[in-house]
Amino acid sequence: MSSIQRLRSTDPNFAATLRKLLAFDASQDESIERATADILKAVEHTGDTALLEYTQRFDRVQAGSVAELEIPKSEWLAALESLPAEQRTALEQAAERVRSYHEHQKAQSWSYTEADGTVLGQKITPLDRVGLYVPGGKAAYPSSVLMNAIPAKVAGVEEVIMVTPTPNGVRNPIVLAAAAIAGVDRAWAIGGAQAVGALAYGTATINAVDKIVGPGNAYVAAAKRRVFGTVGIDMIAGPSEILIIADGTTPADWIAMDLFSQAEHDELAQSILLCPNEAYLDQVQEAIDRLLPTMPRADIIRTSLANRGALILVQDLDEACAIANDIAPEHLEISTDNPNAVADKIRHAGAIFLGRYSSESLGDYCAGPNHVLPTSRTARFSSPLGVYDFQKRSSIIQVSHNGAQTLGTIAAHLAYGEGLQAHAASAEYRLDTPPKR
Amino acid sequence: MSSIQRLRSTDPNFAATLRKLLAFDASQDESIERATADILKAVEHTGDTALLEYTQRFDRVQAGSVAELEIPKSEWLAALESLPAEQRTALEQAAERVRSYHEHQKAQSWSYTEADGTVLGQKITPLDRVGLYVPGGKAAYPSSVLMNAIPAKVAGVEEVIMVTPTPNGVRNPIVLAAAAIAGVDRAWAIGGAQAVGALAYGTATINAVDKIVGPGNAYVAAAKRRVFGTVGIDMIAGPSEILIIADGTTPADWIAMDLFSQAEHDELAQSILLCPNEAYLDQVQEAIDRLLPTMPRADIIRTSLANRGALILVQDLDEACAIANDIAPEHLEISTDNPNAVADKIRHAGAIFLGRYSSESLGDYCAGPNHVLPTSRTARFSSPLGVYDFQKRSSIIQVSHNGAQTLGTIAAHLAYGEGLQAHAASAEYRLDTPPKR
Repeated sequence: MSSIQRLRSTDPNFAATLRKLLAFDASQDESIERATADILKAVEHTGDTALLEYTQRFDRVQAGSVAELEIPKSEWLAALESLPAEQRTALEQAAERVRSYHEHQKAQSWSYTEADGTVLGQKITPLDRVGLYVPGGKAAYPSSVLMNAIPAKVAGVEEVIMVTPTPNGVRNPIVLAAAAIAGVDRAWAIGGAQAVGALAYGTATINAVDKIVGPGNAYVAAAKRRVFGTVGIDMIAGPSEILIIADGTTPADWIAMDLFSQAEHDELAQSILLCPNEAYLDQVQEAIDRLLPTMPRADIIRTSLANRGALILVQDLDEACAIANDIAPEHLEISTDNPNAVADKIRHAGAIFLGRYSSESLGDYCAGPNHVLPTSRTARFSSPLGVYDFQKRSSIIQVSHNGAQTLGTIAAHLAYGEGLQAHAASAEYRLDTPPKR
Repeated sequence: MSSIQRLRSTDPNFAATLRKLLAFDASQDESIERATADILKAVEHTGDTALLEYTQRFDRVQAGSVAELEIPKSEWLAALESLPAEQRTALEQAAERVRSYHEHQKAQSWSYTEADGTVLGQKITPLDRVGLYVPGGKAAYPSSVLMNAIPAKVAGVEEVIMVTPTPNGVRNPIVLAAAAIAGVDRAWAIGGAQAVGALAYGTATINAVDKIVGPGNAYVAAAKRRVFGTVGIDMIAGPSEILIIADGTTPADWIAMDLFSQAEHDELAQSILLCPNEAYLDQVQEAIDRLLPTMPRADIIRTSLANRGALILVQDLDEACAIANDIAPEHLEISTDNPNAVADKIRHAGAIFLGRYSSESLGDYCAGPNHVLPTSRTARFSSPLGVYDFQKRSSIIQVSHNGAQTLGTIAAHLAYGEGLQAHAASAEYRLDTPPKR
């Protein structure tokens, strides 16, 4: 049995087969929805009491007060000191590159003055306070702490509050070290929907935040969806995806490993290769079959490739770009000669990796751009997590006495047309010679 | 009975009273949720057929095909020609000012090259296709067509598709004229959840879009919430709000009328005045009582002011700013001498109107900034509708051969730390001397 399916863009059923391959069941589990709603309601109404109860029940952590669940900075710093030197240096170098890239995203307030003295503009301010959810257990990725916290701090957010569950009281030192490096301000050993509720509504001990970001399990995702509106949230991520456009000039082993690097995340992750060269697809297939048994996470990779992967023969690179724009992948590798010419034809992708040296894994950790990216075709309308997610804008409107004469007349006409007479009168009061009412 | 309640910031219960005043019931109606889910499912699965059925049932418009429901451009142009000259000029002037302001928001792609030749950046692209919902009947505001469509066209969106219900087949010529002026590309006489479904999923006749914007009734709002993820959506707006900070130097009638201009929208709209001068609050109160009976929409204004309005005596302008930041109002008027000094202390507001000549109504129609603004305290974390809502970003990562040597080592360290060996191997393949595996 082949480890990954082969498709041809010229197959009569290709469009339907591709659509089926891309689809996945995102429907929400009713029991999770109900449980989450109950937890949120309890935290909203009884605050710290509910938070302590749920933390004891779900994480088996007993605390006399929520204050005891705060992880003090001294503990993060000790965790940082305890890291092997190479790992600490790697984390610090990654953080520095991420910070430096994100500095380019910082927006500035602007305004302009019209001939009559009217000033218009936009004032940019950071959010006051942000909550960062970090999963516990095996899915606790220090890189994710860097990618979520650094843009917030670059934006100027005063207080970044990390929450992370500590099942049986076990705290993850490398996550704490990453928090120290990323500039997180406070951290609490709480998780699940109860932590999302505490951040959204606030409790006697934990301050309410303005936005909650970071990955989490199905309960966390459901809770974030429910508190959206009370606070901002980042996108709810679907399974991770890589799409590779190759012309056959990159070593086949490299491409096979790039497909694996996505597939190893979980069984639902999606790895697809587009190439106009059939012999090269054979080489990649051979590399997959040869390398797969050597991988520690071979079982996950095998399932992911078998169910959601594909090697697709396309007619040419232009067709590959058209398919890529339709898929709007989270990660797009363009592993070709002259990758810029190919990239010029790409309209929709979370991150574009150009050239054979730009493996997705470099972007995941340390190239600088964010690894929190739009999945499930949402790159058609959304963007990587960035500084702009932690800044917001206020319109500035300072109408001069002269400006009010011109604008008041226009506004009054339109307001009368819409049947909003108070709007019209409010504009006309500012005229030097208001019409008789 | 007083027409609007009076509060003092020094009252012991002030914080709780204010919180209660700001609260409103945003819970979703279960029957609307169920009906919307059914409509969306039908449109997703039977497309044009369902769309025709619902349009006949809800709008009493019978059509042989969805193609017949398209409103041809010739009809918009005829509507534009038929407008009274003054109204047409006012619409065109407003559109020109809105366009000119939004041009300032257009983001440009950027990149930088590092010493080792690695290129990092962000590519900005417009959305391909956007749906614009315009309510039918009395709430059909041409200004809303301008405010939603113009930023999309400035962003470079190829196709803006307007949908608007036409109960009993009645089409609103001023809305069609506004669509012509704003540069809308196509328009269909459909509405409700069925129109949202058609835009999100596409039908045989109507192309699927990437984002849906524009106001609508409870069914439209519920449908937008449900299709979010398949397409992008704008914020679901709550009741409109104005907060005015006054020092008592603006004529009291002007301020009373500014409060009315918000209150006349609907009974749930909220109008609040903060002022440190009690005698001035008395003057505004007197103006309200005197002017209210003269307003065509007096009943709506009366209910809104009585239930959700307030005149609040504050200790000084600094306290007014602190309260304003807590409320994070949709519209904030700073009607004081030296309004810039006050505005410097404001962190959270959708739009800030500075000085006595900057009435909110000027911003609603023609000052230039968008009138689609964050409501219900969401200005803490979100922004006015803008060109940035119709552009999205893709990260650009082009690692040089030399860059891969540095980055590959960092990434591999971190990947091993996270137990993701394929990530590490993918990075290490790019090293000149990969470690032995």
